[in-house]
Amino acid sequence: MDEIPRIEQTLEAAIERATAKDCPPLLAGAVRHATFPGGARIRPRLCLAVAKACGDDIPDLTDAAASAVELLHCASLIHDDLPCFDDAPIRRGKPSVHVAYGEPCAVLAGDAMIVMAFELIGRQIETALAPKRVADIIRIVAGSVGMPHGIVAGQAWELEPTIGLADYQRAKTGSLFAAATEAGAAAAGMDSRQWWALGECLGEAYQVADDIRDVASTPEEIGKPIGRDAALGRPSAVAQHGLDGAKKRLKKLVDEAMGSIPDCPGKDELRLEIAHQSKRFLPKELLLSAA
Amino acid sequence: MDEIPRIEQTLEAAIERATAKDCPPLLAGAVRHATFPGGARIRPRLCLAVAKACGDDIPDLTDAAASAVELLHCASLIHDDLPCFDDAPIRRGKPSVHVAYGEPCAVLAGDAMIVMAFELIGRQIETALAPKRVADIIRIVAGSVGMPHGIVAGQAWELEPTIGLADYQRAKTGSLFAAATEAGAAAAGMDSRQWWALGECLGEAYQVADDIRDVASTPEEIGKPIGRDAALGRPSAVAQHGLDGAKKRLKKLVDEAMGSIPDCPGKDELRLEIAHQSKRFLPKELLLSAA
Repeated sequence: MDEIPRIEQTLEAAIERATAKDCPPLLAGAVRHATFPGGARIRPRLCLAVAKACGDDIPDLTDAAASAVELLHCASLIHDDLPCFDDAPIRRGKPSVHVAYGEPCAVLAGDAMIVMAFELIGRQIETALAPKRVADIIRIVAGSVGMPHGIVAGQAWELEPTIGLADYQRAKTGSLFAAATEAGAAAAGMDSRQWWALGECLGEAYQVADDIRDVASTPEEIGKPIGRDAALGRPSAVAQHGLDGAKKRLKKLVDEAMGSIPDCPGKDELRLEIAHQSKRFLPKELLLSAA
Repeated sequence: MDEIPRIEQTLEAAIERATAKDCPPLLAGAVRHATFPGGARIRPRLCLAVAKACGDDIPDLTDAAASAVELLHCASLIHDDLPCFDDAPIRRGKPSVHVAYGEPCAVLAGDAMIVMAFELIGRQIETALAPKRVADIIRIVAGSVGMPHGIVAGQAWELEPTIGLADYQRAKTGSLFAAATEAGAAAAGMDSRQWWALGECLGEAYQVADDIRDVASTPEEIGKPIGRDAALGRPSAVAQHGLDGAKKRLKKLVDEAMGSIPDCPGKDELRLEIAHQSKRFLPKELLLSAA
């Protein structure tokens, strides 16, 4: 079942509140530009899939967690694209936020979306009647974005003279995927720690696939320029392992992900959903044994 | 009584957790540089003063709220100082974060500190045993920083062709002061809405005083260059009302602030504390009638 309407509706409601009357129009435009139309929404889909597998007994809380993860992902893309980082002109097939709205507005839009993510989760403290779950979700999501191990830290590793590829990828991509699975489980009242490995493996797989696409795709296919990792001298699975080595690593990670799924009521359906979603970002020649 | 050790200890503990082992060293250094040594800590002092006037029955929650407000203030300074905004070389008498650590690290440090602020509040959901208060604090703090009316929106008004001075100052400075008073009251279980006017008036007063200092002080006195508002063509109470007009407006705002304090157990002590703190940022020739 495709759950994307739930995600889009929650995002739309959050952006609608944020861009209400008296909001500076450029900032409102920039935030909307960064959020809609979305990419694959792979992180919030994963969050919802895990929550459903665990019972999804408070759907509003699940939707808030999933949408917060997506808002934080979109915020990180805005800031990653800035001239002082990747200086990326194109994102999701259209001008990046700083190109369309200027650099100051892009900085502010990213900041505002980080705030919006936590506001969205915080609103659930009372309505969800499950404050412990909300506490878990805030801890999980904040940890995945902030310091010392979140995506901000992952990005900051690029500024250091020495850097370990696995630690870097874990922080830069794995952490938000792990937040998606952990927060999905927490929203449904399950022990989130059991769900860390699934997100972690899928996140690293996604990053390796992204590295592969960066050398093996066309700009039209991926909606952004290719060859950026090498041009920016960034750590990459392809640079480290070669193209074939990277593909082998990817296959291994997806298998590990499938094997890590804890026992839960909707385990079989979750495996199918992950296999289905994984096909959206895996190179076509890599078929999933697990599906 | 000077409550600053409570604030410094809470900030130190939060930064200590965030910069634990495996945190990229540059990012850790940038966040510490932005937070210590602090400025006047006027917002968290105000938050604590209000909480104390209202009973301060959960001090850990008060400390978290006050420190979160300060972290968000420090984060906003990092981003405001960036080359695409004020391009400020000096802050609090030392190099601004992007000068000391580079622009990418400054963007990331600001992002990380926004996350850290909400993480700090979220940690109180369980320990405070008062989730409703935590929900109030997240709503208040997020509203004061984000869209449509927080400091990010205030900064974004600078990018618009037309701008109302009062709306701009309210969003850019007043909102975080209002968050300080409202969150202080909420932490102590009081109706936060009654405390909005106090923060709002003090915030606008502080901004007007800052505008006055920008034309009437020395760089040594205020720890940053002077004459920036005029140089950047920014809205300013001095530009709009003249120096004497701005001083009159400042006096009126502080009187309004004092008059707005709701009935509470520690009202007299709070008035004294506000008068004491106000003297730290008011020009010396303006004496407070309220003290």
